[in-house]
Amino acid sequence: MSFNVYLSGEIHTDWREEIRRGAESAGLDVVFTAPVTDHPASDAAGDHLGKPDDNFWRDHQSAKVNAIRTRTLIEQSDMVVVRFGDQYKQWNAAFDAGYAAALGKPYVTLHDEDIVHPLKEVDAEAQAWCTTTDQVVETLRYVLKA
Amino acid sequence: MSFNVYLSGEIHTDWREEIRRGAESAGLDVVFTAPVTDHPASDAAGDHLGKPDDNFWRDHQSAKVNAIRTRTLIEQSDMVVVRFGDQYKQWNAAFDAGYAAALGKPYVTLHDEDIVHPLKEVDAEAQAWCTTTDQVVETLRYVLKA
Amino acid sequence: MSFNVYLSGEIHTDWREEIRRGAESAGLDVVFTAPVTDHPASDAAGDHLGKPDDNFWRDHQSAKVNAIRTRTLIEQSDMVVVRFGDQYKQWNAAFDAGYAAALGKPYVTLHDEDIVHPLKEVDAEAQAWCTTTDQVVETLRYVLKA
Amino acid sequence: MSFNVYLSGEIHTDWREEIRRGAESAGLDVVFTAPVTDHPASDAAGDHLGKPDDNFWRDHQSAKVNAIRTRTLIEQSDMVVVRFGDQYKQWNAAFDAGYAAALGKPYVTLHDEDIVHPLKEVDAEAQAWCTTTDQVVETLRYVLKA
Amino acid sequence: MSFNVYLSGEIHTDWREEIRRGAESAGLDVVFTAPVTDHPASDAAGDHLGKPDDNFWRDHQSAKVNAIRTRTLIEQSDMVVVRFGDQYKQWNAAFDAGYAAALGKPYVTLHDEDIVHPLKEVDAEAQAWCTTTDQVVETLRYVLKA
Amino acid sequence: MSFNVYLSGEIHTDWREEIRRGAESAGLDVVFTAPVTDHPASDAAGDHLGKPDDNFWRDHQSAKVNAIRTRTLIEQSDMVVVRFGDQYKQWNAAFDAGYAAALGKPYVTLHDEDIVHPLKEVDAEAQAWCTTTDQVVETLRYVLKA
Amino acid sequence: MSFNVYLSGEIHTDWREEIRRGAESAGLDVVFTAPVTDHPASDAAGDHLGKPDDNFWRDHQSAKVNAIRTRTLIEQSDMVVVRFGDQYKQWNAAFDAGYAAALGKPYVTLHDEDIVHPLKEVDAEAQAWCTTTDQVVETLRYVLKA
Amino acid sequence: MSFNVYLSGEIHTDWREEIRRGAESAGLDVVFTAPVTDHPASDAAGDHLGKPDDNFWRDHQSAKVNAIRTRTLIEQSDMVVVRFGDQYKQWNAAFDAGYAAALGKPYVTLHDEDIVHPLKEVDAEAQAWCTTTDQVVETLRYVLKA
Repeated sequence: MSFNVYLSGEIHTDWREEIRRGAESAGLDVVFTAPVTDHPASDAAGDHLGKPDDNFWRDHQSAKVNAIRTRTLIEQSDMVVVRFGDQYKQWNAAFDAGYAAALGKPYVTLHDEDIVHPLKEVDAEAQAWCTTTDQVVETLRYVLKA
Repeated sequence: MSFNVYLSGEIHTDWREEIRRGAESAGLDVVFTAPVTDHPASDAAGDHLGKPDDNFWRDHQSAKVNAIRTRTLIEQSDMVVVRFGDQYKQWNAAFDAGYAAALGKPYVTLHDEDIVHPLKEVDAEAQAWCTTTDQVVETLRYVLKA
Repeated sequence: MSFNVYLSGEIHTDWREEIRRGAESAGLDVVFTAPVTDHPASDAAGDHLGKPDDNFWRDHQSAKVNAIRTRTLIEQSDMVVVRFGDQYKQWNAAFDAGYAAALGKPYVTLHDEDIVHPLKEVDAEAQAWCTTTDQVVETLRYVLKA
Repeated sequence: MSFNVYLSGEIHTDWREEIRRGAESAGLDVVFTAPVTDHPASDAAGDHLGKPDDNFWRDHQSAKVNAIRTRTLIEQSDMVVVRFGDQYKQWNAAFDAGYAAALGKPYVTLHDEDIVHPLKEVDAEAQAWCTTTDQVVETLRYVLKA
Repeated sequence: MSFNVYLSGEIHTDWREEIRRGAESAGLDVVFTAPVTDHPASDAAGDHLGKPDDNFWRDHQSAKVNAIRTRTLIEQSDMVVVRFGDQYKQWNAAFDAGYAAALGKPYVTLHDEDIVHPLKEVDAEAQAWCTTTDQVVETLRYVLKA
Repeated sequence: MSFNVYLSGEIHTDWREEIRRGAESAGLDVVFTAPVTDHPASDAAGDHLGKPDDNFWRDHQSAKVNAIRTRTLIEQSDMVVVRFGDQYKQWNAAFDAGYAAALGKPYVTLHDEDIVHPLKEVDAEAQAWCTTTDQVVETLRYVLKA
Repeated sequence: MSFNVYLSGEIHTDWREEIRRGAESAGLDVVFTAPVTDHPASDAAGDHLGKPDDNFWRDHQSAKVNAIRTRTLIEQSDMVVVRFGDQYKQWNAAFDAGYAAALGKPYVTLHDEDIVHPLKEVDAEAQAWCTTTDQVVETLRYVLKA
Repeated sequence: MSFNVYLSGEIHTDWREEIRRGAESAGLDVVFTAPVTDHPASDAAGDHLGKPDDNFWRDHQSAKVNAIRTRTLIEQSDMVVVRFGDQYKQWNAAFDAGYAAALGKPYVTLHDEDIVHPLKEVDAEAQAWCTTTDQVVETLRYVLKA
């Protein structure tokens, strides 16, 4: 059994790499995908089309280019991991969770206990809440190999 | 022409009331709906089923009960307004936006300029970004009566 | 706010009537629907088309006639209540729950604590688990009037 | 012609193995999938996320982890076999049948004659009712090779 | 409980009128719809757009105009009755049955016993096979009032 | 039988009014809807949100506001009339036709004979091609009253 | 460019073989599929489950087994060819056409000119009407290689 | 990461070849598809079925044959590029954009600045507006390799 897993959310820590390594160690047949995680590159995703003077439209243009990638990868995935870190608003992560929920695509969340309350709506539609990348890997191992 | 409009997000200011009054003044044929906006009641939505000792499961249980209302209302609406205020994480608002996006349901956002950047993915799928409730009302007036 | 609620499952106790009375007492704007609950009539639903000698086909014919009603009502409902009682296999109730789940239709379960374990997959997709009809009514009251 | 077939239901007899062997003997190009059939492992599917004290939530957590696997496999299958054995409630099997029915996914049932009546709604949506694993294999052989 | 029922198929006998009268006598809350049953008018449905010299294109043009009505009515119905009479090919009736089946719309067939064999694929997806209009009315009565 | 009909396309002649008058004369039960047909108002649909300096973004902002109305009305309609006039590119009309086609929503076109060739893909998915508003009215009369 | 093409309808002439040979000669990358075309085998498709005494149920049982194959193949195809021959009612062919139409699956018909009129509804939703197998092959050649 | 990209629109310049070369130079894993771009062949796509005397029906017949190819390719693509050139009406390009939009399929437009205004509805649903084929290639490079 093989799986496509999209890794959504926080881009400032190496949680994606931890999950990739863990899955490899466990011998899991998983293809991981992700948004562009180079922050400046992501912010400039649309600049080659002409960089708008107005910040709102520059962001708008880049976000729409990024969505070509992210929307396609979420739709093609079998499962999504949605990570909320310590910093930043991460509304895009919650947006991806809502998008996955409406598609009926299973997702798990990955976040610390101190933000359980503000994330309750996001967790309510999730298949599991993990606090460590090891738990994500173990969840995948169970789903694919148990 | 009439519209059902779901008002998602911030529950600590009276923005919903402002929009309702504005729409009434403008003579618009709109039915507004919303999540339960009484914060303690919302947190306790599932307590009548037996209040779990564990905070995570108490939140989980309440969030699932709330979703009966919110998911139904979003699906039955013609348009959603998603409000991000000055405080709180408001991941549920971003979740609702993603949910609406995946359903192909049009939504507009309502938030200040200083959070344009972290909301760029949410705004990219929106039909409009408003900074005042007057702009939301004017958008509705245009859509329904222009 | 008004709701269509389909009451699926057990047909040998008066739980439907209790919920109807409770909703009326609470002044809720709910239209309740249900399968045909007259057991002999339900078993004979297709007999007017010619009663097959073979029991399997007699059941088959009747079940398909009943499905005209039940499938339509589930699809038109805003929420489903799925009741598992003390007796009988009640596979049709679990079938309705799976059907609702695949449609993305919210449902709540109503059953005693002693069958929590065999119903765990059914409860996992439910929005709430109730043990009394009062809890179902209170859930509806919260969703519609809180 | 090749097929993905999901084998849902009873986990305490070797009916899955019989079908696998039969399909192999018949030279059929079928990939069989199944839920996790190790009962204790399945009950503990979510324990690595922290085992809740409350039995309901422990079951809930595990069932949601299992659903990542089962929901995905049902959606990716071309056909489902739903097995009802002599023991246990097997509401999850009926749930899977309802889920498949709502997706328009063809399924066949596998059960003894003495439970034809309580399973009439489940059989009514099935493409075939089998009483032996040989009949399931013969159905597959016909569909794939006739 | 009320129903929209589309009456598809044969246009040369008064079966539709019989069902309408029977439903009225039984006090059923049913709105019946149908294709245009005036044969020459139906064949000429597109002639006001310019009547093509070629018979194929004249038929094509008229059939596409008729489809505006029939497709919409089938999609808006709760149930379809598909009638096969003694004469004519009635491929449009079988087409409507296939269309309803793919939409998951329940339908019943109405035809004599001597064409059971060539109609077996159409009957296999139907919820019931009736031989008389009384049986259709009784089926509706059961579904709506039992 | 009643219909919702969306009138898409050209905004510089009074074809919509002709169809409305014709339908009224014929006593048809039709609700007609349309995009905002006041050209300057439509171009300025988003200006109340802050008028961007850049023409592309000003157009973008207004077009997205207009889409709240047009997308909703097309989805709620039973049929669409797509009008191509003598002037302007009218790509939005062709866009609406493609949008309707993908939704399986029936539409008819209204245009002169001299543009039959460049519109062949749009006409191929249409239910009918009309050259006069009288033909549109007659099509509606046939569909609703024949 | 490659295609899956399902060949529906008449089973008493060798039209499928002609199309297969033609496509091979033209070097087209097409995988052709079909229902079981051995008539007695198809009629007996369900007999291994126990042959019902009643003809209706025997046909019913076999038709449902056949549908496992045909429904899956139609849904997996890129295009369907629907053949109406000189004999038999061939309602299953018209049923398949309606099924394909509702799925938005393109199909072409293959039949003689003398049955154009009774097939007008089926042809109206088709992408092309062919009278010879050479025309079907040429249509495929154009679509895949032009 | 690999992508299927459908290149819709203008057929009289070599923009498709420029994008193909650019993607190859950038080492992108993209499969490009397109409509038949040989104009006379496309106009004659249905002539092998018998060329109608009437121009409208000849165009109609050919357009329906072309749609077998174009509709399938759009549905199978991950992204669409919609090109509007200096000449011709190109309503089919706008139609494809509307079709893609309704499917939720991401597309980018490729056109000069002087037609920004008439294309505003088409651009509003696009993920990006490009003016050069280099920008299209750079967009693909970012999406696939950044």
